Amino acid sequence: MTTTSTAKPFTLYTGSTPNGFQVSIFLEELRAIDPSIDYDVFKIVISTMVQKEPWFIKLNPNGRFPVIVDHSRNDFVVFETAAILLYLAQHYDKNHIFWFNSQSEPDDYSEMLQWIFFGHGGIGPMQGQSHHFQNYAPEVIPYAQKRYLDETKRLYNVLEIRLQDRDWLAGPGRGKYSLADIKSFPWVRRHPFAGIETLDEFPRVKAWVERNYARAGVEAGLKVPPA
Amino acid sequence: MTTTSTAKPFTLYTGSTPNGFQVSIFLEELRAIDPSIDYDVFKIVISTMVQKEPWFIKLNPNGRFPVIVDHSRNDFVVFETAAILLYLAQHYDKNHIFWFNSQSEPDDYSEMLQWIFFGHGGIGPMQGQSHHFQNYAPEVIPYAQKRYLDETKRLYNVLEIRLQDRDWLAGPGRGKYSLADIKSFPWVRRHPFAGIETLDEFPRVKAWVERNYARAGVEAGLKVPPA
Repeated sequence: MTTTSTAKPFTLYTGSTPNGFQVSIFLEELRAIDPSIDYDVFKIVISTMVQKEPWFIKLNPNGRFPVIVDHSRNDFVVFETAAILLYLAQHYDKNHIFWFNSQSEPDDYSEMLQWIFFGHGGIGPMQGQSHHFQNYAPEVIPYAQKRYLDETKRLYNVLEIRLQDRDWLAGPGRGKYSLADIKSFPWVRRHPFAGIETLDEFPRVKAWVERNYARAGVEAGLKVPPA
Repeated sequence: MTTTSTAKPFTLYTGSTPNGFQVSIFLEELRAIDPSIDYDVFKIVISTMVQKEPWFIKLNPNGRFPVIVDHSRNDFVVFETAAILLYLAQHYDKNHIFWFNSQSEPDDYSEMLQWIFFGHGGIGPMQGQSHHFQNYAPEVIPYAQKRYLDETKRLYNVLEIRLQDRDWLAGPGRGKYSLADIKSFPWVRRHPFAGIETLDEFPRVKAWVERNYARAGVEAGLKVPPA
């Protein structure tokens, strides 16, 4: 497959993972507003290691997905999930429906970035380690299991504090659904995989997860790539 | 200490860590251009756990440093290292000396963000785990030591690919010193702590580290907080 032979404006290289779903959810949210936002999906199954092949390393030297190619902007390539979200927002959400205007809403914009980075550097990598030691490591290592389970719970508690008087992670008042929520929701929904059976001890996080699930864009995004 | 009693425009809560140095380096780079950029330092020693006290949790619910308070903008608080860098850039580097203009240089801006997120979600958290299992874990766990050492080396190899024909991680041609470099340098310079004795197998990364060290702002930033 060459990335230039497509008819749709974007090609999304992705798989059914918490990082992949962030981008497909945002694309589906955008598409519900503007149907010209459409994309071909190149489905990646991690175990095939296609993401480590030379042609993919040319797209992303880190050998990880999601990656998006924007055919309407000279096949510009973007990797790193959160960088893809901010790229799509800048070029295709000019009305700031899902983010904040850095010039007219600088404090909301910064708070959104703070929570995006919290998800990108905290929940994602730490919960990812919990996934690994709970499910994939070839040996049971109680110390590592506990370390990452405890850290994931600690990070959920930070979300719990943030959500004590709001519905969404960023924005004035009770907040506005934004990239900050899209960033962390696909991780938190997978809590059982990290060893956290229920979200009962995090009631506000639990309600926030349900709030995310109720969105049509989320429902559609979680079906990408198709099984 | 109250954050409003200070005479300087910023209060930086920080310690001598790879995340802390990112902000002090950037502040010193900015200060070399504009001496009005000045800041008080509230020094944090991790082991005292002051960063988990209620007054600090009010600044950053994640209980981690660095945190900056901007007294010239209504004591606005910013946490998450990379979010602090982007905040300072937006408000105090309007000439885009250390970053890129999202409107007139959108592709360079996105590439900078991609490498910032690579550092924030990759090198930082993964090298941090290598630090832990090499130095702090109460038991020697060979599987975890190898996992994070290998991953840190893999990530350095990604930097090595990126630097094959450039001096800095983002920007046209051979690149421009930017937030992307400030983000990862304080981690990579600590490679021995992660179990990587020398950078000899990563010659371009090694040269890039030396290029960072040669900067006066880096030298000054690495002295904050004072011993």
